[in-house]
Amino acid sequence: MTDDQRFGLNRRVRLEGPLRLDSRVDLAPVEIAYETYGTLNADASNAILICHALTGDQHVASHHPVTGKEGWWTRMVGEGKPIDPARHFIVCANVLGSCMGSSGPASIDPATGLPFAMRFPVITIRDMVRAQAMLLDHLGVGRLLAAVGGSMGGMQVLQWVATYPERVGSAVVIASAARHSAQNIAFHEVGRQAIMADPKWRGGDYYGAGDPPSAGLSVARMAAHITYLSEEGLTEKFGRQLQARDAKSFGFDADFQVESYLRHQGIRFVERFDANSYLYITRAMDYFDIAEEHGGTLATAFKGTATRFCLISFTSDWLYPTAESRRIVHALNAANAHVSFVEIESSFGHDAFLLDAPEMNRVVDGFLRAAS
Amino acid sequence: MTDDQRFGLNRRVRLEGPLRLDSRVDLAPVEIAYETYGTLNADASNAILICHALTGDQHVASHHPVTGKEGWWTRMVGEGKPIDPARHFIVCANVLGSCMGSSGPASIDPATGLPFAMRFPVITIRDMVRAQAMLLDHLGVGRLLAAVGGSMGGMQVLQWVATYPERVGSAVVIASAARHSAQNIAFHEVGRQAIMADPKWRGGDYYGAGDPPSAGLSVARMAAHITYLSEEGLTEKFGRQLQARDAKSFGFDADFQVESYLRHQGIRFVERFDANSYLYITRAMDYFDIAEEHGGTLATAFKGTATRFCLISFTSDWLYPTAESRRIVHALNAANAHVSFVEIESSFGHDAFLLDAPEMNRVVDGFLRAAS
Repeated sequence: MTDDQRFGLNRRVRLEGPLRLDSRVDLAPVEIAYETYGTLNADASNAILICHALTGDQHVASHHPVTGKEGWWTRMVGEGKPIDPARHFIVCANVLGSCMGSSGPASIDPATGLPFAMRFPVITIRDMVRAQAMLLDHLGVGRLLAAVGGSMGGMQVLQWVATYPERVGSAVVIASAARHSAQNIAFHEVGRQAIMADPKWRGGDYYGAGDPPSAGLSVARMAAHITYLSEEGLTEKFGRQLQARDAKSFGFDADFQVESYLRHQGIRFVERFDANSYLYITRAMDYFDIAEEHGGTLATAFKGTATRFCLISFTSDWLYPTAESRRIVHALNAANAHVSFVEIESSFGHDAFLLDAPEMNRVVDGFLRAAS
Repeated sequence: MTDDQRFGLNRRVRLEGPLRLDSRVDLAPVEIAYETYGTLNADASNAILICHALTGDQHVASHHPVTGKEGWWTRMVGEGKPIDPARHFIVCANVLGSCMGSSGPASIDPATGLPFAMRFPVITIRDMVRAQAMLLDHLGVGRLLAAVGGSMGGMQVLQWVATYPERVGSAVVIASAARHSAQNIAFHEVGRQAIMADPKWRGGDYYGAGDPPSAGLSVARMAAHITYLSEEGLTEKFGRQLQARDAKSFGFDADFQVESYLRHQGIRFVERFDANSYLYITRAMDYFDIAEEHGGTLATAFKGTATRFCLISFTSDWLYPTAESRRIVHALNAANAHVSFVEIESSFGHDAFLLDAPEMNRVVDGFLRAAS
């Protein structure tokens, strides 16, 4: 038995749909690429959904097919980890709009036989969650023991509770927010403009040319990457250290290590990600504002909820700072929800949730062990 | 008598040089575009040099020839203002490497008769200051009553004291730093990569084509502009407000006001600024680290200084945060310098120094009135 069989790696399902999107467009069929780890127990009570971030994917604890790197959250998911296939039935699906096998702009439009490109409907975080609910129906999971996610994954978790309150026993929301701020939108808009300014973007119809807008997407990634790190983290890691050479070049090569690092981030990213998907998913995040769907009051979204919440933020995260988590906590308190909140000291900025963070693991482990 | 004659507007001088640059290249001739306001008194003791920021220019209190807008610091410079042509002889010069008349990549290389483009030597903040010193020699100004600048202007002021300690009576350093941090460098590198990724950049040789890399420069400006504002300022000004339409478009037009604002900033900027100059000046800023020139200890740069210092920072400036000003103050204290420091409450981020800031004006006015 291969790993792919023993675990449910590299799976893909085509659901008939249609899925009615927030844009009022009906999407059909809906393809979802996903992985599962562990076994669903007899009463289907041990399922944990992991929601991934903007450029994440379903390979939460398996090797990425393009980069060959290990899964993006093996620190949290695996044997002896807080989310453990020995105890949990773990589901992680590529979000709608992405490029790792789920329906997105690179998918074939059945109406034309060509890639959707920018004809793919604009989607929302709620649409991603609806697609995940369709997948869970397909897998025979009614109620989740827990939904867990960081960054955009945390947004999906919040949206899960707001949209399907009876289906989420516990919610773990890490380094996230209940809305995108003006500054969040601004950074995403820079990334989108960088992609759309690349002549190779061709209005989105670059799939046939075999020459995608890598330069634009790389710049978008570089700008975003700065927001994933903290000023203090960058200073600790790079400071003003020059590359391995004696002195400044008095030219425009990467003199500083931080320049070289950023360029490398850009180059690596374009090998594994689709530029149009980047446009669609950033748009979904910018549209995200749970309060807006509930008369402008966040507490209303969670009124009467029986879901237990665990919120975690990191001190040096300036993309989704602690204040955004506190805002959620206050709303949950106002909704009389069961909520625990921890702010963890870290110099790694927003990326801290993807890195070694023993305190985060302890908190999530304790919270999930008390879940039912 | 026209304004241009009464004041010294739109002036330009060609100095023979050569100017020995930090890169060990000799630049000759050195052209400097500048303006003066007021009259140099008999003992040449009332001169104030104003140093401009990255995309600033010599039109500190006169109309910009391209945009037609009033000078960039009329809140600080003018009749009845802290820097007053009735009392001061005010000099403001376009920095070396810029594009408003001083020698830069768009200048003609006398060796070839063609624009330098990327063959212009890489310059430093110290080179800019050396060129200003040549201009002051030309104008008959030996010692400055004061050197005043915000942002990159503040860096020049610090460099003035470090390079020509006997020539600066008082130094006003606003919203600035004594070095560029890893995060500062990272943001600049994103901007440079955006420009160089634009096929119209053509390795810098775009001057003849009449079709400059506007898309890349615009993206660079958008990314930089976010760093000039604060998260709280963006939230106050734009929040998640949509453009004048009923609802989200579910498309990729500028739905949010902050998107539209950013795009506008990018478009306006490319009308007045040269992409290669943006590369050169950001490089100069990234190279800037006064301590490095003095054995790694900032205090050494100011040892024995007789210059009086006034430092001002703004609470919401995250580009050059208060901590960077404090670092300078500590070094000045260690050097037994005369220094006053004020942190001003503001939600306008780094841009605060260009906006209406009565407390800044009061502080600068009081400080300069005590100068001699």
